[in-house]
Amino acid sequence: MYQLGIVKRHIVRADRAAVERLAGFGVATVHEAMGRVGLMKPYMRPIYAGAHLAGTAVTVLLQPGDNWMMHVAAEQLQPGDVVVAACTTDNTDGFFGDLLATSFRARGAVGLVIDGGCRDVKDLTEMKFPVFSRIVSAKGTVKATLGSVNIPIVCAGALVNPGDVVVADDDGIVIVPAAMAAQVAEAAAAREANEADKRARLAAGVLGLDMYKMREPLEKAGLKYVD
Amino acid sequence: MYQLGIVKRHIVRADRAAVERLAGFGVATVHEAMGRVGLMKPYMRPIYAGAHLAGTAVTVLLQPGDNWMMHVAAEQLQPGDVVVAACTTDNTDGFFGDLLATSFRARGAVGLVIDGGCRDVKDLTEMKFPVFSRIVSAKGTVKATLGSVNIPIVCAGALVNPGDVVVADDDGIVIVPAAMAAQVAEAAAAREANEADKRARLAAGVLGLDMYKMREPLEKAGLKYVD
Amino acid sequence: MYQLGIVKRHIVRADRAAVERLAGFGVATVHEAMGRVGLMKPYMRPIYAGAHLAGTAVTVLLQPGDNWMMHVAAEQLQPGDVVVAACTTDNTDGFFGDLLATSFRARGAVGLVIDGGCRDVKDLTEMKFPVFSRIVSAKGTVKATLGSVNIPIVCAGALVNPGDVVVADDDGIVIVPAAMAAQVAEAAAAREANEADKRARLAAGVLGLDMYKMREPLEKAGLKYVD
Amino acid sequence: MYQLGIVKRHIVRADRAAVERLAGFGVATVHEAMGRVGLMKPYMRPIYAGAHLAGTAVTVLLQPGDNWMMHVAAEQLQPGDVVVAACTTDNTDGFFGDLLATSFRARGAVGLVIDGGCRDVKDLTEMKFPVFSRIVSAKGTVKATLGSVNIPIVCAGALVNPGDVVVADDDGIVIVPAAMAAQVAEAAAAREANEADKRARLAAGVLGLDMYKMREPLEKAGLKYVD
Amino acid sequence: MYQLGIVKRHIVRADRAAVERLAGFGVATVHEAMGRVGLMKPYMRPIYAGAHLAGTAVTVLLQPGDNWMMHVAAEQLQPGDVVVAACTTDNTDGFFGDLLATSFRARGAVGLVIDGGCRDVKDLTEMKFPVFSRIVSAKGTVKATLGSVNIPIVCAGALVNPGDVVVADDDGIVIVPAAMAAQVAEAAAAREANEADKRARLAAGVLGLDMYKMREPLEKAGLKYVD
Amino acid sequence: MYQLGIVKRHIVRADRAAVERLAGFGVATVHEAMGRVGLMKPYMRPIYAGAHLAGTAVTVLLQPGDNWMMHVAAEQLQPGDVVVAACTTDNTDGFFGDLLATSFRARGAVGLVIDGGCRDVKDLTEMKFPVFSRIVSAKGTVKATLGSVNIPIVCAGALVNPGDVVVADDDGIVIVPAAMAAQVAEAAAAREANEADKRARLAAGVLGLDMYKMREPLEKAGLKYVD
Repeated sequence: MYQLGIVKRHIVRADRAAVERLAGFGVATVHEAMGRVGLMKPYMRPIYAGAHLAGTAVTVLLQPGDNWMMHVAAEQLQPGDVVVAACTTDNTDGFFGDLLATSFRARGAVGLVIDGGCRDVKDLTEMKFPVFSRIVSAKGTVKATLGSVNIPIVCAGALVNPGDVVVADDDGIVIVPAAMAAQVAEAAAAREANEADKRARLAAGVLGLDMYKMREPLEKAGLKYVD
Repeated sequence: MYQLGIVKRHIVRADRAAVERLAGFGVATVHEAMGRVGLMKPYMRPIYAGAHLAGTAVTVLLQPGDNWMMHVAAEQLQPGDVVVAACTTDNTDGFFGDLLATSFRARGAVGLVIDGGCRDVKDLTEMKFPVFSRIVSAKGTVKATLGSVNIPIVCAGALVNPGDVVVADDDGIVIVPAAMAAQVAEAAAAREANEADKRARLAAGVLGLDMYKMREPLEKAGLKYVD
Repeated sequence: MYQLGIVKRHIVRADRAAVERLAGFGVATVHEAMGRVGLMKPYMRPIYAGAHLAGTAVTVLLQPGDNWMMHVAAEQLQPGDVVVAACTTDNTDGFFGDLLATSFRARGAVGLVIDGGCRDVKDLTEMKFPVFSRIVSAKGTVKATLGSVNIPIVCAGALVNPGDVVVADDDGIVIVPAAMAAQVAEAAAAREANEADKRARLAAGVLGLDMYKMREPLEKAGLKYVD
Repeated sequence: MYQLGIVKRHIVRADRAAVERLAGFGVATVHEAMGRVGLMKPYMRPIYAGAHLAGTAVTVLLQPGDNWMMHVAAEQLQPGDVVVAACTTDNTDGFFGDLLATSFRARGAVGLVIDGGCRDVKDLTEMKFPVFSRIVSAKGTVKATLGSVNIPIVCAGALVNPGDVVVADDDGIVIVPAAMAAQVAEAAAAREANEADKRARLAAGVLGLDMYKMREPLEKAGLKYVD
Repeated sequence: MYQLGIVKRHIVRADRAAVERLAGFGVATVHEAMGRVGLMKPYMRPIYAGAHLAGTAVTVLLQPGDNWMMHVAAEQLQPGDVVVAACTTDNTDGFFGDLLATSFRARGAVGLVIDGGCRDVKDLTEMKFPVFSRIVSAKGTVKATLGSVNIPIVCAGALVNPGDVVVADDDGIVIVPAAMAAQVAEAAAAREANEADKRARLAAGVLGLDMYKMREPLEKAGLKYVD
Repeated sequence: MYQLGIVKRHIVRADRAAVERLAGFGVATVHEAMGRVGLMKPYMRPIYAGAHLAGTAVTVLLQPGDNWMMHVAAEQLQPGDVVVAACTTDNTDGFFGDLLATSFRARGAVGLVIDGGCRDVKDLTEMKFPVFSRIVSAKGTVKATLGSVNIPIVCAGALVNPGDVVVADDDGIVIVPAAMAAQVAEAAAAREANEADKRARLAAGVLGLDMYKMREPLEKAGLKYVD
């Protein structure tokens, strides 16, 4: 249950070194390293091709058609943070544009993930300020109703606690709990080391059927080859 | 982040008396009593008109096309429980039908909330077993991949902890954290007492404009009456 | 372009007799009588099976998550009116429930069409207060931002002027401009007279191919029968 | 690839006795008997609660906004047929209403499955003429462009050949190839016999975990019980 | 209510100078200058990144699967016009491609806004002919049923009168009524002048909380800072 | 009806020369040459702008959340093939990434069409491996349940037989039955020859109304010009 009208000032951010290690992996690799969990829903898209980010979450709960809390969140930002914003109902208004991006960047933020609308796409693209949003919409908002900052939120189907690691790229967005950041980075590195070799063998024409030893389990499952 | 392959056997269920009090209120009233939060998304619908339920959550995390964990969950049910099931990805398969309902009921469960598909609607309606689902689908599932039971889950946009109170009716589904059940029931009762009087006055022709004293704030906000 | 913060007090309602004649026809018949135009989009659905209404439009423009203007609209209602509500952005919040319905009915309104959410479905069904909405949602709203009342609005894809005739049933919702109400009622009556005879002939086994003389145009268009 | 402008007069209908046997099973049972295949997508819904049908398919390919081919199809109907209609593009117009239903019934048809819109829902409900459609819409259609009748079509994601068995109920719609009707009916009967016993045991409190012998495979898959 | 089969030849276009001024502003700025109204729904997207246009509307009402009226509209085009096309029902067919774009451009048109499908995206991108559409689809259309040209239409949720100003960019599409074009351009200029200063201050680290003097209203609304 | 657990090894591929001819035309042209049929639904999109492909189909039927059959399919690929993958239910998981692309390319495949999710978009874009998918999603899959390879499938609304020609570009995806490939290529060539001349005339200002001789049929249909 969301608590409204709250700003939590002190949050425990994931270890900086772990965030930096995670920044080196793709979202697909990170979520695999966690056991195929932690992803936001795939309706979330980057506002420009190639946008990517990694940082620690400052969370925002918005009210529909109202971006008041984005301004409250700005003050809580530290270098390396990513703003992660959810709304109390599905809403596509343009809660965020180039002015807020300027402010967020001045505070050290490295991007935004918002389960709502974003606008000023041209300016944001020129600024290279990465935003992942539900939709693009020019629709402006009011500043009239309280939400909260730095409470746990559900954003695009994922639970995000303030301080968690957010990694986003063309493939989507993954949330790594702060306490597990180092361990997940480790697992991701192991996974990636493994992939280079696999890629080389597949490129040489080796079949996954053989490389992953699938022929026997497929036969056991009842697969039949016919002409 | 979801932990997979886990079944938590001992959960702290909300106080029974508080659940029973909450059962007496509509979902709209309960979520207002919490400050307009706690609702699942409105794509969740009852499989028959008039379905309603209130109980304590036993949570299930499913994998797409796979209902294995529903059987695992059955064993964890106690009288008065509601099964709340989410899936690691959006999936509309028919994870639940009359056989599982028979089993759940035999264990004392009073209904199901599932962010996925449900089938055997005719039988479930005859059984008066209330189900709230994303969709109805005859598509059957396999039993091959592990999820979890009684971990915190995100279901239709709402965070659900095992033991939380679930109230569902024609208007939707609301989750009340176990620790707040009594307090929310209190607030809901206060709210409802208040409503009977309001209804009578509105029925007598009193305008909300006057009853809620809105004329002055509307004028201040700049409302203009024209002919 | 919508003008915000406006309440128009005097509107020209369609002729009462014409509204009553139109009330006798189904939505499909009325829109055919207008040349297959005037319908709202089919995502609009009655909140209970069999809901239907016919009346003159009092229009409301809402802001997302805010139902302030519904209370303003109540004062403008006259017997036989239907409230038609749109929102400045797509929004599924529950802008309307049984208290507002009680107030609207006390003022003589005969129903609601809303391109947004509705709640208290059980109570509204018991009251037999017909509502056609985009969705059902328990989510409550605030009263903080101005919209307008009795301006021309676009609701679910249809342009609605205050005073227009609204006819709604299981098949959908049609808007008849006030000035054309009598003429459309006439055309609908002619159409319906025509249908009884057609129905009888089709029931007797006559084919539409022959009754509508379609065989020759089908052949000209190149239709081929093969074995 | 669809051939346009074609009406196939002679089609091989599934064996009548097999259709009647299949009519006795629910859609969920039939599709399980086929190995969990053959279903249309779950956006297809009955226009009234409890609608159900079983029969042999007469297929229709429509053009958007045009129901000309429905009249052509009427002539090809035989007692026990179900009209199955697809469209060359996604279209929600009301291709079908009570007049066509009267004609189809006069020819012996027992229902309609249409990946498009349907109207006159009130009349069709009174007639107890079962229709499963993508949506309800009052929007009428023209008669200007050729489609085809009795060609293989893709309807709501399922391939339908003329003469195939169509079974539809609250859970969805399943297509059984004509040549397999008897065999599938056999498998469905075996499956259902099996279910009565299972239901009794589950009602008596036996767990699926034990009845289906799942404890060992779950343990092997790595399931952990924690307190 | 739409009148079908009508082509209006003489329309009052917005003042050319005002259109040119409006062309200098982004869509977000223009709709703010109008009080946050006038936008089409955000499902409308440019067919290539960076597409933008500004001009006077020539409106087209299409029938589903039929682009006949696009050819009728071509003759009504004058230099600086934008074709704005709606359809009597939701339809995703490819009503428009490079041949029509060639014709429209030869007549002086500067772009297209269509609540339907568009095709030949590669060619249109090479031509730099800006199109904003609901979807991209290769599906061709027929020329069989009348719509209208230069009647008031509802396109993607916005009312468009022939002659209105259309401004479209990455953020969306806004309609400025012809009579208000100069006044809105004035307001947009004022707004933009204002923004440069704000941007500089935010970039220097000033918080919106202070720049917009939000601290006091936030406190009054009940915002609490916690540790 | 899908047969599960089947791999068909010998399929009849469309004539190579015809495929190469078809590769020279856009999707819009090819589907027009077939009479405006054969398209997949327009929700299918290229993962990078400008992606295009043409080849012979190797079909794959997947189970939700499971990409086992993709590895089985790899072995069946021959130079010039396109993998066309459908799923037994709507599923957005990331069934495909850069490792499988490496393997498919090593076998000679020229691209993928998948009615499901794709991931590793950045790598695939760098590899210039064209993929057309329903969505992009990082979500990984398991390898546990059998589907089939080289059976007829319905993919995004189109029937695809193994060996059929697949042509895909920015406008969409079209399937040409193997046996008709040469004939359709011929028709496409004729159509395209025709278009160059039309384009030149339209660019010179000739109206489609005159070029296509539409004035008389429009008048007959009742079109009225008003001032």
